[in-house]
Amino acid sequence: MSEAFPTVGLLGGGQLGRMLIEAANRLNIKVNVLDTGASPSKLIAAHGGHIDGKFTDRASIQKLAASSDVLTVEIEHVDTHVLEEVARDGHKVEPSWQTIRTIQDKFLQKQTLVKADVAVAKYEELQKGTEEELSAIGDRLGYPLMLKSKTQAYDGKGNHPVYSAADVPSAISTLKDRPLYAEQWADFSMELAVMVVKTKDQVLSYPTVETVHEDSICKLVYAPARNVSSRINAAAQDLARRAVACFTGKGVFGVEMFLLRDGRTLLINEIAPRPHNSGHYTIEACRMSQYEAHLRAVCDLPVAADALRMREPAVMLNILGGADPHSHLRIQRAALALPGASIHMYAKGDARPGRKMGHVTLTRDTVAAAEAALQPLLDLVAAVRAERIDIAQPKPSPAPPTPQLRAQPGDARPPSVAVLMGSDSDLKTMTAGLDVLERFGIPHTVRITSAHRTPTVMADFATAAAASGIKVIIAAAGGAAHLPGMCAAYTSLPVIGVPVKASVLDGVDSLYSEVQMPRGVPLATVGIGNSTNAALLAARILGVSDAEIRGKVQGYAEDAETEVRGKDQRMDQVGRQEYAKGMGI
Amino acid sequence: MSEAFPTVGLLGGGQLGRMLIEAANRLNIKVNVLDTGASPSKLIAAHGGHIDGKFTDRASIQKLAASSDVLTVEIEHVDTHVLEEVARDGHKVEPSWQTIRTIQDKFLQKQTLVKADVAVAKYEELQKGTEEELSAIGDRLGYPLMLKSKTQAYDGKGNHPVYSAADVPSAISTLKDRPLYAEQWADFSMELAVMVVKTKDQVLSYPTVETVHEDSICKLVYAPARNVSSRINAAAQDLARRAVACFTGKGVFGVEMFLLRDGRTLLINEIAPRPHNSGHYTIEACRMSQYEAHLRAVCDLPVAADALRMREPAVMLNILGGADPHSHLRIQRAALALPGASIHMYAKGDARPGRKMGHVTLTRDTVAAAEAALQPLLDLVAAVRAERIDIAQPKPSPAPPTPQLRAQPGDARPPSVAVLMGSDSDLKTMTAGLDVLERFGIPHTVRITSAHRTPTVMADFATAAAASGIKVIIAAAGGAAHLPGMCAAYTSLPVIGVPVKASVLDGVDSLYSEVQMPRGVPLATVGIGNSTNAALLAARILGVSDAEIRGKVQGYAEDAETEVRGKDQRMDQVGRQEYAKGMGI
Repeated sequence: MSEAFPTVGLLGGGQLGRMLIEAANRLNIKVNVLDTGASPSKLIAAHGGHIDGKFTDRASIQKLAASSDVLTVEIEHVDTHVLEEVARDGHKVEPSWQTIRTIQDKFLQKQTLVKADVAVAKYEELQKGTEEELSAIGDRLGYPLMLKSKTQAYDGKGNHPVYSAADVPSAISTLKDRPLYAEQWADFSMELAVMVVKTKDQVLSYPTVETVHEDSICKLVYAPARNVSSRINAAAQDLARRAVACFTGKGVFGVEMFLLRDGRTLLINEIAPRPHNSGHYTIEACRMSQYEAHLRAVCDLPVAADALRMREPAVMLNILGGADPHSHLRIQRAALALPGASIHMYAKGDARPGRKMGHVTLTRDTVAAAEAALQPLLDLVAAVRAERIDIAQPKPSPAPPTPQLRAQPGDARPPSVAVLMGSDSDLKTMTAGLDVLERFGIPHTVRITSAHRTPTVMADFATAAAASGIKVIIAAAGGAAHLPGMCAAYTSLPVIGVPVKASVLDGVDSLYSEVQMPRGVPLATVGIGNSTNAALLAARILGVSDAEIRGKVQGYAEDAETEVRGKDQRMDQVGRQEYAKGMGI
Repeated sequence: MSEAFPTVGLLGGGQLGRMLIEAANRLNIKVNVLDTGASPSKLIAAHGGHIDGKFTDRASIQKLAASSDVLTVEIEHVDTHVLEEVARDGHKVEPSWQTIRTIQDKFLQKQTLVKADVAVAKYEELQKGTEEELSAIGDRLGYPLMLKSKTQAYDGKGNHPVYSAADVPSAISTLKDRPLYAEQWADFSMELAVMVVKTKDQVLSYPTVETVHEDSICKLVYAPARNVSSRINAAAQDLARRAVACFTGKGVFGVEMFLLRDGRTLLINEIAPRPHNSGHYTIEACRMSQYEAHLRAVCDLPVAADALRMREPAVMLNILGGADPHSHLRIQRAALALPGASIHMYAKGDARPGRKMGHVTLTRDTVAAAEAALQPLLDLVAAVRAERIDIAQPKPSPAPPTPQLRAQPGDARPPSVAVLMGSDSDLKTMTAGLDVLERFGIPHTVRITSAHRTPTVMADFATAAAASGIKVIIAAAGGAAHLPGMCAAYTSLPVIGVPVKASVLDGVDSLYSEVQMPRGVPLATVGIGNSTNAALLAARILGVSDAEIRGKVQGYAEDAETEVRGKDQRMDQVGRQEYAKGMGI
């Protein structure tokens, strides 16, 4: 049995390579980097195996192949003809040179996907690259459309929008002398991305995330994507895996796609044959990062589907260069002050405006909570961008879009429990439970909303609750007592119902109304008027994933046990008659 | 405003330094390492600032101080007299040279703790180091006791147990010529550890973990500690913070302590003024690792208490050198096949038997689940150890201690839901709910246990459920229907009660018995016989921390909506009379 792991030869030494080497260092796998100078990747791997040269240079690539067991890339703009030669000479190249060559040419990439029946926007090749030809295509595809260079296009460079026939001349003149094609405008509501891992015998995928671009550069990644139904999520996973299955070789692939405004149609935008900006979040949010997955895939080490699942939702924010060479350090400083933010700086030296200098990932229990916590940094990023592109200083952003919910006055944390009452007359019943939430330090919002008198408000609140970071809803109602059950109908969160004793029937009316929910919409009902137990049940539910709260539930039970044992001891000591006197019996 | 971060000078270049530099690389903070040769730390920081020399060498330490803004250590066996000199010359040393000097000498360390009223085992100094002196101490402290070298003691070296007066001569002869003290034997049931972060104005702590030693070397860390009450946990946190508050300077400190067999008494064992083996788990299990916390503390960058909380329970296993220089690679290979295991190899080259070559951290939803998943690796580690110490090949270990629970036949995952029935006659009622759990792919165990006929089994099951990885209990009962409520009394998990309709009273008896629980012990009651809603409620509860399950709950609701709308459409199209015919009305 050979014990040694293969030596990896890496074409390109930027931040993607740096994070790949971070993963390689942990496994003690040697990576030889081919790039010019002291690139970010080389700085964290001190050995003599690196090569100083361009990743498009024949002799350098050959030298890298000779000193490594398997070649891979962290950028696709390499010389695939040399890769083809070294592969023919018996060197391993992952993914294959054919895959890299096809993906380099976006037109070829689209043709390959269409052949495999993978959905992409309609497109047509420009044979001559003339205005007449583009006008004719515009008539067929309709406006707006996007004129694109087949090759050497990234971060918005090499693309030109054509809003109407009037834009044809400027588009052609901007991209002249390049190989071109035109693409139907994707009228999307959202951009999604999926990192796919292709091993020697499997095609696995990371969760579906949402990407937000600004100035044609990826700015934010929300993991998982916000407000995407389970159907769309499954469709995106399937589409991404089918797209990557078209290509030969091993490694991770970044698949970017559009979700159109119809809310149903997904189209592949483009594919990268390597780790991708939209997958940075995996370092913290998943048990195995995209970098380790890439390394394992190209080295034929095991990759488990389970390791690609998300362990915590996350938001990723790129740190870009600003107006002066140190602007990005202001963002780093602010990120250092964000509790629990994971910062990755790429050690690129001085920044150019818009250059990717690092990124920050914030994980929280929900995407909404991460988004809310990130807001101060987003404000600063907007200010740094304003300096850079010489636009007016933006106004401080308003409160973050979600959650609008506040906990009790003086508690700055986003609430995790919502306590709803059909009427303020229920507050007397609910006070004991609210005291428990306070004692346990569980942030909560208390609202008055009625299923019958404010039906729309109730529905909106329950619908938005999960996205606002609420994890459990407690609802109290008397009489017909529809509020708890109706809330349960509008949310997938656990809802606890407290039947309140109204003027007649001793609360049995409310109890029946709450507990006898139809099959399909569950409601956790507690005893009549027993808000204490509703709060304790909410704490037990939160305790499933929060050890601190679970500890408090245990402590509460220990205290109750001590109290009852103390009473028992006292009655045993003083006798039941004396004891009764103390009780005023 | 100066934008640059301080350059850190690190005495020692082993694995702790390596993981510190991994954190420094992410923040783009430069760390100059003082150690001999190409030590593990230097290998991941390629720059000309490292110094080739011993961390006990005066000239080397002075050179390091001259080229760095702040000095710190990854090992405490440094020359504190030189540190004192450079500190007097105005260089920053964190933690202070006084702290390192005090901690180097375990006797001085104990004296310092005792002075601050921090609990330690009783001890006495040996002034002369003679047998007579030790015998006299033995008479006073009692046997067994531990004879300890004040200095240069680690991983069991420098300690000698003295079980009775008969062991006095061998103990003295083994440790002769060393400065000695004797310590009362700590009759402990468990070893606990807490990593403490001391910043310029705060003393913060990571969670309390459990450490397991073998051959006097740390083998396993369970985070959080298993079966430790919230009271002991709070006491351990308090003790650790008070202990570290005794020392001056900034950085992280590893605090090891004993929990004695009385289940109440905690005694400090020893303190390390640096990152510690018992804190490796923080890399994956917390949002900020002990390494980043150390770096931030010594550089006066912000450390938030929130970032030290555990985001996922974990088990850490050290990978030690075995009989041949490559034995540990077998363990690494096996770890690569464990889904989601995070592997850290230290790049130390060939191994010596028992040398720390790397470690593996496995995070899961519960410690029990991580422990169960780690079992194959523990078996292999036992086999590699057996080769190393030349003992008989151990038998394959029995099934892991917890969880004993199995999901349904054919499902290898540990169950997250337990479905309990007071009698098999309840199965008919429960089948619809069990089908929902299956449809959602939620692993579950189904058991028959009666509050009245098997009261002890019921109590034991409910008591152990949380530690076995169960997250929600569903219990069904008819008539007096005590099972769900009694389960809730024995656990801090959320319990869902299903009232079953018995022969009389239409199930109202069971409903009242379940829903009307006393204040303090909550039970989530659903409608009579409505096991579907019990299962859906369990799914909603799991969905609070599991996005995949939440997605399935949404999908279920979407399907139900589609079904009702389809029926509505059909009735609208064909008319109510035709529709009624289809229903056989």
